[in-house]
Amino acid sequence: MPHPPFEPACPVTALPFQIGDKWTALVVLCLEDGPKRFTAIRAVLPNVTAKVLAETLRAMGRDGLVTRAEYDENPPRVEYALTPLGRTLLDLVEAARVWSRAHLPELLANRAANTR
Amino acid sequence: MPHPPFEPACPVTALPFQIGDKWTALVVLCLEDGPKRFTAIRAVLPNVTAKVLAETLRAMGRDGLVTRAEYDENPPRVEYALTPLGRTLLDLVEAARVWSRAHLPELLANRAANTR
Repeated sequence: MPHPPFEPACPVTALPFQIGDKWTALVVLCLEDGPKRFTAIRAVLPNVTAKVLAETLRAMGRDGLVTRAEYDENPPRVEYALTPLGRTLLDLVEAARVWSRAHLPELLANRAANTR
Repeated sequence: MPHPPFEPACPVTALPFQIGDKWTALVVLCLEDGPKRFTAIRAVLPNVTAKVLAETLRAMGRDGLVTRAEYDENPPRVEYALTPLGRTLLDLVEAARVWSRAHLPELLANRAANTR
């Protein structure tokens, strides 16, 4: 992953847009550089529970955004990878990141000022 | 609005990304060309209930994405308009539309094939 994930100061939950389920965009970013195991994905996204990450990956698999490969090793190894379709989301995720860097602080300041 | 809203064949609910709440992206598109009344926005988005659209507009107002202007007429006129911050979302919404046109059919075909 060439970029850090969304900064803690820019919580993805506050974004005025969302890519897929809450964690889809971050999974896409996380797999940008190649296949990863479940535990490696989760290490990058410490705020997601194993259950929710498994559901996210299952939904992404169903939509053809990621593949799940099982290797017959001991212990068995399972890796997730972006499909070509999944890779098409990278530009969109990057556009969302650029927007966030430029404008999310203003949006969050507005929200804080209007929810006192 | 220079473009039609997302085509019925490309239901926004199936998108692998979402801009704000479910209807935020469409409200942004709907207000691209200038202020509109609530009823005019709703006419473009017939699938949204008045309650949900009102909540969407309130959340967008709180985040500084739209303004709400009341005109002292009889009957009173209320118009919503994009703020400069709200207009910054137009590029992102357009990127999402371009992605959808190119790739959403494939995603939906995958989903249909995998949820039989």
